[in-house]
Amino acid sequence: MRTIDWVGSAVRIIDQTALPEREVWLDLATVEDLVAAIRRLSVRGAPALGVAGALGVALAARQYGNDAGGLARALSLLREARPTAVNLRRGVDHAAAALAGGPDAVLRAALDLRDDEIAASSAMANLGADLVTSLCGDAPRVLTHCNTGGLASVTGGTALGVVSELHRRGRLAGVIASETRPLLQGARLTAWELSRLGVVYRVAVDGAGPYLMARGEVDVVIVGADRICANGDVVNKVGTYAHALGARAAGIPFLVVAPESTVDYDTPTGADVPIEERDPDEVLGYGAVRIAPAGAGAANPAFDVTPRDLVTAVVTQTRVVQPVRALTAP
Amino acid sequence: MRTIDWVGSAVRIIDQTALPEREVWLDLATVEDLVAAIRRLSVRGAPALGVAGALGVALAARQYGNDAGGLARALSLLREARPTAVNLRRGVDHAAAALAGGPDAVLRAALDLRDDEIAASSAMANLGADLVTSLCGDAPRVLTHCNTGGLASVTGGTALGVVSELHRRGRLAGVIASETRPLLQGARLTAWELSRLGVVYRVAVDGAGPYLMARGEVDVVIVGADRICANGDVVNKVGTYAHALGARAAGIPFLVVAPESTVDYDTPTGADVPIEERDPDEVLGYGAVRIAPAGAGAANPAFDVTPRDLVTAVVTQTRVVQPVRALTAP
Repeated sequence: MRTIDWVGSAVRIIDQTALPEREVWLDLATVEDLVAAIRRLSVRGAPALGVAGALGVALAARQYGNDAGGLARALSLLREARPTAVNLRRGVDHAAAALAGGPDAVLRAALDLRDDEIAASSAMANLGADLVTSLCGDAPRVLTHCNTGGLASVTGGTALGVVSELHRRGRLAGVIASETRPLLQGARLTAWELSRLGVVYRVAVDGAGPYLMARGEVDVVIVGADRICANGDVVNKVGTYAHALGARAAGIPFLVVAPESTVDYDTPTGADVPIEERDPDEVLGYGAVRIAPAGAGAANPAFDVTPRDLVTAVVTQTRVVQPVRALTAP
Repeated sequence: MRTIDWVGSAVRIIDQTALPEREVWLDLATVEDLVAAIRRLSVRGAPALGVAGALGVALAARQYGNDAGGLARALSLLREARPTAVNLRRGVDHAAAALAGGPDAVLRAALDLRDDEIAASSAMANLGADLVTSLCGDAPRVLTHCNTGGLASVTGGTALGVVSELHRRGRLAGVIASETRPLLQGARLTAWELSRLGVVYRVAVDGAGPYLMARGEVDVVIVGADRICANGDVVNKVGTYAHALGARAAGIPFLVVAPESTVDYDTPTGADVPIEERDPDEVLGYGAVRIAPAGAGAANPAFDVTPRDLVTAVVTQTRVVQPVRALTAP
């Protein structure tokens, strides 16, 4: 199953906001529809956003033909739809570089990027699973945060791809899926993927993670990344940093799994990354259920920064960086 | 407003499960009704549970008169209604010690405990506010977790009593209320109390706390406790430990405010405290809304343990313990 792809003349995605209740597929035929889907998180996850960005340029090239102004506006909308994940604008730039060759060339470039991400998922899963087994033995209990599976990529995934590969190899003792408030990508999406894979798992509230580690219920924490900075700092879903502190205190490895396309050599450190602040209502309610009293405000940073010193290793499709120091292109 | 009291011949409580949407008051006329209310968290918070336990014995003494077996069963039900907070069984034991004097003597003992908690709230608020000002100056930004206000006590509160006193003195720059999944006591109850007090606050998801500290948006973390062990370890709502790790990493004070009745000299360390494991459905859904897919399991420890080394000071109604080492009765 590819969670994002090009079908006919549209971008087809599984609508992540409807899961796990309903499996809804959307065909997005205009770049504006795709941008709206990205903003409401119908498609999300760094590698998937990269592919979405590239396919979005393919849509734009068809829509705007020789209207240079319209095309430029569309590309800018796409690039800015989410500010934190570097893959989105990278995907846009990759496909846009083929614009001179016409719409078909743009589409080919976008599909190449899709194929690269599929191949990267598979390679990361293998490298990551080897590393986990070497660090934690044959029956590790994994904690993961947010969703980093096929939904966040095209197939397979990053951190959850490693979990899935460990399961395939019979070298996984269990998973704790951190629910990942406010939008519950862990409880909704990771749980859905783990159920489909037949993996034994438990959902935990985000605040419980460090305590479950202290209590000896977790052998390794594996997460993805929305951006890895040149110095090795990791920007990922809010709550990641707290789990990294918990792993450090418990003396267990904290692994980051992400494709090379997530490493941003142009961003020196985590402090240089714009952290998306999302709508307070995501925190103050859940779906139609209002939680907080009227008039309440909210702090809603969608991501946080984990300093490189808390990261045991970064795994990409081509390398294991350990210890994590300044990164240079492989 | 007293959030728990004796009115007529019943225990009157504000139903905390209905807040902030509706303000519902319940008159609980039997010990069984009170136990059910404690279990579903209609009344919660360590000091309030102590008073509930004592008033529950007053109910039991009236219901069971000379039926020693019925009385013993009722007291045992009460003591075990929640396993982690020491105040509940302390309150039961305090009132039960007056059983020989008959129902009126039991009620007097229970009301004495109520009055002690009211006085303790006020004293803690003053001591705690003095300490915060001395540590953080005149305009601290506070992060607090769970609910520790009048709802968790009879009036005033513990950690939130300090916040309220700082506000009354004009020495508070703002509050972040950690939402406190799974039951959202922060987003629902603390937010409701802060709104009523006119305090400027923002709700944040639990996973965001340590990052907001790292980003420089918090000057001090103030929490309550469900049990303070003889060695100084603090057992409190799950998520507390993660915030303590965040405070340590950010170099800001982490304060625990609780009455002397929460200090348990009979429990050597945090590892000796039974941690209540609650219904998985609290994690897997919110109210009528189902979050996780069918078949999902959950880890749902209601509390966690913060080692004393992460606690800057413990504030009770009579003392400030700093640094936190083994506690002896004052």
